[in-house]
Amino acid sequence: MTTMLQSYVNGTWVTARDDGVALRNAITGAEVARYSGESLDYAAVIEHGRTVGGPALRELTFHQRASALKALGKKLMADKDQFYPLSTATGATKRDSAVDIDGGIGTLLSYASKGTRELPNDTVYLDGDTEALGRAGTFVGQHVYTSRLGVAVQINAFNFPVWGMLEKLAPAFLAGVPSIVKPAHQTSYLTELVVRHIIDSGLLPEGSLQLVCGSPRGLLDHLDGQDLVAFTGSASTAAKLRTHPNVVEAGVRFNGEADSLNCSILGPDATPDTPEFALYVKQLVAEMTTKAGQKCTAIRRALVPQSLVEDVVAATKERLAKVVVGNPDTEGVTMGALASMAQRDEVLRSLKSLADVTTRVSGDPDHFEVVGADADTGAFLPPILLLATDSFADAVHDVEAFGPVSTIIGYGDVPDAISLAARGQGSLVGSVVTHDAAVARELVLGIAAHHGRVLVLDRDDAKESTGHGSPLPTLVHGGPGRAGGGEELGGIRGVLHHMQRTAIQASPDMMTAITGQWTKGAARDETEIHPFRKHLEELQIGDTIVGGPRTVSLADIEHFAEFTGDTFYAHTDAEAAAQNPLFGGIVAHGYLVVSLAAGLFVEPNPGPVLANFGVDGLRFLTPVKAGDALTVTLTAKQLTPRLSADYGEVRWDAVVTNQDESPVATYDVLTLVAKLPTTTEES
Amino acid sequence: MTTMLQSYVNGTWVTARDDGVALRNAITGAEVARYSGESLDYAAVIEHGRTVGGPALRELTFHQRASALKALGKKLMADKDQFYPLSTATGATKRDSAVDIDGGIGTLLSYASKGTRELPNDTVYLDGDTEALGRAGTFVGQHVYTSRLGVAVQINAFNFPVWGMLEKLAPAFLAGVPSIVKPAHQTSYLTELVVRHIIDSGLLPEGSLQLVCGSPRGLLDHLDGQDLVAFTGSASTAAKLRTHPNVVEAGVRFNGEADSLNCSILGPDATPDTPEFALYVKQLVAEMTTKAGQKCTAIRRALVPQSLVEDVVAATKERLAKVVVGNPDTEGVTMGALASMAQRDEVLRSLKSLADVTTRVSGDPDHFEVVGADADTGAFLPPILLLATDSFADAVHDVEAFGPVSTIIGYGDVPDAISLAARGQGSLVGSVVTHDAAVARELVLGIAAHHGRVLVLDRDDAKESTGHGSPLPTLVHGGPGRAGGGEELGGIRGVLHHMQRTAIQASPDMMTAITGQWTKGAARDETEIHPFRKHLEELQIGDTIVGGPRTVSLADIEHFAEFTGDTFYAHTDAEAAAQNPLFGGIVAHGYLVVSLAAGLFVEPNPGPVLANFGVDGLRFLTPVKAGDALTVTLTAKQLTPRLSADYGEVRWDAVVTNQDESPVATYDVLTLVAKLPTTTEES
Repeated sequence: MTTMLQSYVNGTWVTARDDGVALRNAITGAEVARYSGESLDYAAVIEHGRTVGGPALRELTFHQRASALKALGKKLMADKDQFYPLSTATGATKRDSAVDIDGGIGTLLSYASKGTRELPNDTVYLDGDTEALGRAGTFVGQHVYTSRLGVAVQINAFNFPVWGMLEKLAPAFLAGVPSIVKPAHQTSYLTELVVRHIIDSGLLPEGSLQLVCGSPRGLLDHLDGQDLVAFTGSASTAAKLRTHPNVVEAGVRFNGEADSLNCSILGPDATPDTPEFALYVKQLVAEMTTKAGQKCTAIRRALVPQSLVEDVVAATKERLAKVVVGNPDTEGVTMGALASMAQRDEVLRSLKSLADVTTRVSGDPDHFEVVGADADTGAFLPPILLLATDSFADAVHDVEAFGPVSTIIGYGDVPDAISLAARGQGSLVGSVVTHDAAVARELVLGIAAHHGRVLVLDRDDAKESTGHGSPLPTLVHGGPGRAGGGEELGGIRGVLHHMQRTAIQASPDMMTAITGQWTKGAARDETEIHPFRKHLEELQIGDTIVGGPRTVSLADIEHFAEFTGDTFYAHTDAEAAAQNPLFGGIVAHGYLVVSLAAGLFVEPNPGPVLANFGVDGLRFLTPVKAGDALTVTLTAKQLTPRLSADYGEVRWDAVVTNQDESPVATYDVLTLVAKLPTTTEES
Repeated sequence: MTTMLQSYVNGTWVTARDDGVALRNAITGAEVARYSGESLDYAAVIEHGRTVGGPALRELTFHQRASALKALGKKLMADKDQFYPLSTATGATKRDSAVDIDGGIGTLLSYASKGTRELPNDTVYLDGDTEALGRAGTFVGQHVYTSRLGVAVQINAFNFPVWGMLEKLAPAFLAGVPSIVKPAHQTSYLTELVVRHIIDSGLLPEGSLQLVCGSPRGLLDHLDGQDLVAFTGSASTAAKLRTHPNVVEAGVRFNGEADSLNCSILGPDATPDTPEFALYVKQLVAEMTTKAGQKCTAIRRALVPQSLVEDVVAATKERLAKVVVGNPDTEGVTMGALASMAQRDEVLRSLKSLADVTTRVSGDPDHFEVVGADADTGAFLPPILLLATDSFADAVHDVEAFGPVSTIIGYGDVPDAISLAARGQGSLVGSVVTHDAAVARELVLGIAAHHGRVLVLDRDDAKESTGHGSPLPTLVHGGPGRAGGGEELGGIRGVLHHMQRTAIQASPDMMTAITGQWTKGAARDETEIHPFRKHLEELQIGDTIVGGPRTVSLADIEHFAEFTGDTFYAHTDAEAAAQNPLFGGIVAHGYLVVSLAAGLFVEPNPGPVLANFGVDGLRFLTPVKAGDALTVTLTAKQLTPRLSADYGEVRWDAVVTNQDESPVATYDVLTLVAKLPTTTEES
């Protein structure tokens, strides 16, 4: 007997006491490891996450969590060669393994990067603008996200033992929510190995990641409205989890991602003489054979103009003929095995369900060559291309053969293609292969509501396209209806999914205290020291400099027009300007107003402020006329110290007013401000 | 027998054939109308929404839908006096009726306004920035929202027959999704009346609103993954709906909003001598008595520092003593009846469940005065204040008496208050009454994850505060856990809830064609005519003007510094500037760069461009030094014609590059551009 896979729970590795079941090498049939049928004391596991992992994570800012993920990503990248041999046991080719292993680590690193660039160096995330709730400005609203106080139970599918784990872990971790990972037993030995490297690295706070290798029975019984469940797998298991009393009644946040019958649509313009035709066929074959077609995102339905069906069948057959099925360790093999014999049997059953409404045009499951392995002990299948005899038959749009199987389906016109796409009842992804912009617009907007992701492939993006079947960390992964109705990834969207959105209502002062960001209407502190003379650590939210007044003369306006070349008539031609419905006379350039404002608030001498790197949300509210006197008020609004630099970003609220105290221009000024020389956390 | 309430379905008013049940006046017990126990042919109703209402709505842009909502809001506001008498039959006082009727119409108008200001004049909504998916820039990602292609089934609670209907209808309508409204039978006569006014107005496209007055049996049986259900009501009914096979398996998007045991926390600083103490008591009494306490958002748990319990009890009793219960039509009555006798019985049952763990300190359900009505025929109750004998007893945090009932619960320190708040297992709203910013921050961030909304009340915002119990159209309404886990309203968030988010991947040209917004990397069209000479209708996305090069001299920089007063050392002091880690020498002002850029792209003569009203997302990417030659490229990115003005907004993509073609500054320029003189849609 091989060794029993361990669980990492409550801060330690534990081994179940039963004999478990054998997990077998998909290529050779040899036993790889054993997997326990026992469940664990899940109440204790969840409690450990809640009381040890959660608090440890929530003490860190988003940037600190991102920094831990970055370090972990680098560590796993350095270790990755140790993961590949075990990945082969799942039936994967080297290329398949890269999708799972490198893809997973890349997702981790993408989240590290997004977390640093797009989240504040804080624990609270502000969602949207402040809403004025009263005319006098004493009562305002602001949506914030805070970490949910529970755990994220992550139940993964067998096909991506590494990526599946990391793509769920990364956003949860960044959100401050500890993960409890339950891999699918079939390929859990690879997940266990990677988790072992993660735990050994010591880079994640204890309790932020626990691994369950055992029966999930009872895993949801102790969850409540602060917890989350993310599930990837079959629709039937999703339905079972979704009706768990704690999901239905206690408000466990459930996210489901299920297989779907994704379509790829060939545009009517993409005849065999176009580059798109070849791209379509190439992508179809890639999706059929990558991971032996065991991808939730693979193309199951190839929608092809009726007139091009014969051509597509012929070209796809030709390309499929070059696929070499067998042992991934053998030279020349391009497609490996399915993850298990059970999975192969499942595909064969699905093929039977499709037999009445399709013709098999390529690939025979009973007769095919296997290179470098024994066809009887490995879970092999050839790529199988079907052709729908009736495009509208239910089974074609409903029966998913989760393996190297796709069905070509003829369609009439574009609306016909859209309605056939909808027959999938909701998909993770669809692709549209066309070089006709009008066709692309009609197809994409026509199918968008049924899809979580739509790829438009043509000669222009083919070289950089990541392909129909690849979820990306920056784009949402999930889909409506049959695809489970969930959303994962999508950059920061996936982080916020793990947090609670709350609308806060308060006075501007209280709002500033709660959010840590200066809110319009809150107190300003006109300190003795010019705030530009303060280092990052010395600056306080609310520190303010008021500059002015400076009177704008007609000569200023005329000179600015001449100097910059901006001789727009509203600045130069009194008669024409008088006709302008908004101005009714000569006005100062908006750029002149903000340039003069900078002159009023700037501190000229060298100091902590290194640069003004940008301006956000500049709006010109009241025209400035000759004789108007401008005053600027600049208030420190948000501080973002960088962990890995000796400076940080400071966002300033700027308001320029005229002599009537009417706001002339409002905007945010963005500066880089140095830290005190001695306090750099990292260099 | 009174008349049977009708349903408005399939474009016509229909009357059920059964006798139905009597709906009774909550004050007098007299029959108001009858409500059918029959269900309708829901397959046909849903099909009507999908095939008539949906397509009609989706032909309209967001602005056109907003315009219809605005007209409807005005119409209902004009008609509102006709709704008040029937509202009294629900037990409501004039003030209660205003919350329901005026509040509902106000929500409609708020959505009309937000839809015009914050959504494009288009049918597709772009979510977030374009994501670069490849280094060469030929492959990009963009999230878009499109209308879901189904219907929104809206199942409302009895307590807000008007607001409940309109707050769900408005965001769905704006999203392009037709509504099927199912009011709670108890007060459905008022909903029916308002819907009658809506339908008669002819302002909404046929099929965009259907009304079901009958049994909901079978209403969910025909829904699929494109449909939505929004439910407000009891947790038990929510649980039943949530386990419907079409929700569990077909992916119907379900949003639940259930009653919760909302808390209001008095800060330890808010002793009887502070304004906050009085504000706390006043708000508590208001929440107990408005709508006779029948609000999902009412305060059920009054968390009070142990040392202040006696004071709060005394002050609340004193204020409650002034409440006059009775017929709202009688002068001086300040609290009406519950909506029905059944509802009163339900409250009495809950009071029994609370009896073991509380003391009744004010209000006796068996002995109280009713003014202007018969206490035996109306559903009357007095306001009842309870005091928890054990702050941690389960029932105190779990049993909701859905009427004029609150429980005062003593707490020790602030962390104690936070953990007591959490015992509610998720609430719609909590309030914190304190003038101590540190206490506010600790309490608010401590309870945020358990709440959909948190109000901080103090002397500063009291005058404008809309109160603990009032959901606002611009803020999310909903809460985690027991509160149902859903989100309604929240401005545009509530609209997007009815749409499908899809990640599109394409080349920049294709992305531009699909989204209707120019995407970085897409083709630019340098037309013969300067784009500033084109009216709104003549402009095309991608129209481009290139200006320059203009060389920036040291004299320019020195002059600009002197002229504007922006004498920051990096522009004026070569030696000091050389020490700046980012610049290493004299650089041009960022404002000089954008001012010169404007000089390069502007068309000086009077024309369709009326004004530059703002700049978004300005980033300075490469320092500009003396001798650098600047070129600007300005490209029409987004067009937003205004329905009710003779101009629209044009957003331009601006890039300033130097002689090495490195980008120096990127930003969006916002202009107002006139329509062709004859094509104004409305004036």
